[in-house]
Amino acid sequence: MQCSKCGNPKVIIKKEQSGQLLCKDCFIESIEKKAIKTIRKEKLLDKGDKVLVALSGGKDSVTTLEILNTFRQMHIIELCAVTVDEGIDNYRQDGVDIAIRHAERLGIEHKVVSLKDEYGITLDEIMQKENHKGSCTYCGVFRRTIINKAAREMGATKIATGHNLDDEVQGILMNYLEGNIDNLTKLGAKSESKAEEFTVKIKPLREIPEREIGLYVVAKELEVHFDSCPYAMQSFRGEISEVINHLAEKHPTIKYSTLRGYDKIKNVLKKELKKEFNHGRCSKCGEPAANELCKACSFLEELGM
Amino acid sequence: MQCSKCGNPKVIIKKEQSGQLLCKDCFIESIEKKAIKTIRKEKLLDKGDKVLVALSGGKDSVTTLEILNTFRQMHIIELCAVTVDEGIDNYRQDGVDIAIRHAERLGIEHKVVSLKDEYGITLDEIMQKENHKGSCTYCGVFRRTIINKAAREMGATKIATGHNLDDEVQGILMNYLEGNIDNLTKLGAKSESKAEEFTVKIKPLREIPEREIGLYVVAKELEVHFDSCPYAMQSFRGEISEVINHLAEKHPTIKYSTLRGYDKIKNVLKKELKKEFNHGRCSKCGEPAANELCKACSFLEELGM
Repeated sequence: MQCSKCGNPKVIIKKEQSGQLLCKDCFIESIEKKAIKTIRKEKLLDKGDKVLVALSGGKDSVTTLEILNTFRQMHIIELCAVTVDEGIDNYRQDGVDIAIRHAERLGIEHKVVSLKDEYGITLDEIMQKENHKGSCTYCGVFRRTIINKAAREMGATKIATGHNLDDEVQGILMNYLEGNIDNLTKLGAKSESKAEEFTVKIKPLREIPEREIGLYVVAKELEVHFDSCPYAMQSFRGEISEVINHLAEKHPTIKYSTLRGYDKIKNVLKKELKKEFNHGRCSKCGEPAANELCKACSFLEELGM
Repeated sequence: MQCSKCGNPKVIIKKEQSGQLLCKDCFIESIEKKAIKTIRKEKLLDKGDKVLVALSGGKDSVTTLEILNTFRQMHIIELCAVTVDEGIDNYRQDGVDIAIRHAERLGIEHKVVSLKDEYGITLDEIMQKENHKGSCTYCGVFRRTIINKAAREMGATKIATGHNLDDEVQGILMNYLEGNIDNLTKLGAKSESKAEEFTVKIKPLREIPEREIGLYVVAKELEVHFDSCPYAMQSFRGEISEVINHLAEKHPTIKYSTLRGYDKIKNVLKKELKKEFNHGRCSKCGEPAANELCKACSFLEELGM
């Protein structure tokens, strides 16, 4: 056993799809090269961008920050970060602390916003309510709203999220199975929001398997919050994740083939369905909204807030 | 417990997605109505059609024949059938015998064509070869070619296959996961072949779950071949079938939502990708072919036939 690239006998990974063996340094380089390749191919960054990283403190967002920081060091972009505290007991605080330490280490502008401060209710409190719609439904909408607002307030031109290959393929498959074509057009490496109020979102890690990001942060000795959300396995996403990983054992390239197929479909759907986004304003909070109330405000109303 | 439609206390099924309870007669009626609804909605039949049923003798093709026979009895269409004998020991002969008895019972024109007679080799013999491509690859191509040829020889204007909801959703998901966009456009209730040499294919049972077709043939006391193909579980399709059925336990409408989503995507893909089908002729057998040799002849060449 030796590194397929440099011959170093200390191999730390056998790549799932290619079967390539890599030592620590060559593995770290391969991950960074792959993210940079996605950034170039999908034109995720423009010179002079101020990129806001949605920084939970988990492996994916810390890796996103680390890789984008190389572009900052080359004075191609500016970097800032926002951390959303959803209010999940015995889980979120560790991530928030880690996010703060990373922002301090790199010396970048950083904001922590809690659901409690913003909306007067934590995710744990929402989950106590009867007839709630499931944790991920609220978390997704409230987090998105908070991050969009932070981007505007901090003058960011792009929002970078830590979505990895597994996240992206789960999202694609969930929407295929739910027959949710409108949502399908919203996935991809870069959002195509036409509304000025929505900052463009980018996903530099979209082609990197979750497992490899886990190994990357260990190899780079980056401090990350490794716990997974206590609500995650209750979700449809959790089921779909199990299904895909099960299939990938026998079909190691299945995540990539799903992604490539989706990208082709998305290109066709985009052309056909380019009806303009109806971006009115929420009559309550003034955020962009498809209906009279934005999703966040209509959830808050249902929750009696 | 009583039938949701007529109050009969002898209930034979609780429908997976609707939860409806049905007695035998109401269940039989519901299946026939559903197939007729698909035939109307998708415009599968035209008055005067001569429909060739691809009749294996299994539950799906026997049900297809049974339902299409009601249109024949009303003098809307003519009916004929073809049975392909792939040459699978201890499996195929029973199905062939059952197919012959159904054709005789209804008094319709029927042809049995074997791979051995047509190509000089059985599927079992192919599977003995080293480096074969998997049973379903050959079976699919050779069967399709034989059925297309039979349709031309018998003057059929449509070919009806027994694909049920489960088959269709499996095909959709397999192509999503393999990223096979070209094949995705070929699924659906009705083929859109522009080549005159290919008879249009229709799937009247496309919205009926496999389980309900199994119950239909029992309720109607139709003789069918219930064994499943000994090669089936080796296939990717078998794995995908397990995955979908597992998800459907918790999400009873997932097969329908996948189908509806696919139909929307297909409509968009069709418009965009309507490049003409390149229908040359196979230089060896004269069947329609995309390349110099048709798929069947190129497989035969590889097999040294």
